Amino acid sequence: VPGWEVVEGHHLRRRYSFRNFRDALRFANRVGGIAEEQGHHPDLSLGWGYAEIRVWTHAIDGLSENDFVLAAKVDALGAGSA
Amino acid sequence: VPGWEVVEGHHLRRRYSFRNFRDALRFANRVGGIAEEQGHHPDLSLGWGYAEIRVWTHAIDGLSENDFVLAAKVDALGAGSA
Repeated sequence: VPGWEVVEGHHLRRRYSFRNFRDALRFANRVGGIAEEQGHHPDLSLGWGYAEIRVWTHAIDGLSENDFVLAAKVDALGAGSA
Repeated sequence: VPGWEVVEGHHLRRRYSFRNFRDALRFANRVGGIAEEQGHHPDLSLGWGYAEIRVWTHAIDGLSENDFVLAAKVDALGAGSA
């Protein structure tokens, strides 16, 4: 998935930038909606002006097709990448 | 603030447990509401079943009274601590 970094062959990671805390949290909620819909949940960090998404498949402690699907859907939200 | 760990004299940290991703995200939103109200914003990480809050004052790269106030308000939400 373009724009995502594969970290240690273990997870996908992407950082997005926002104007403030509120927008970062709003983005997290949109990601949460996607996650519930797909039944696949990321780990995320956020604070003032940023959100970072990490995606992997806990059951295999590595990457599966689900992860790439989730990453692509998150990107489709069109948030600014850092 | 009881239950919070002071990490390297730099920030306060506390981890909370939840039944799933949705509840962790709901908690993050409540924390976000408090943060906007106080005008002081934490950094937080969350995923399936957990949320971790970190609080410090970026302007001084360390702890100020605002951080302890925010931590106490977050605790008052009554979420399960890990």
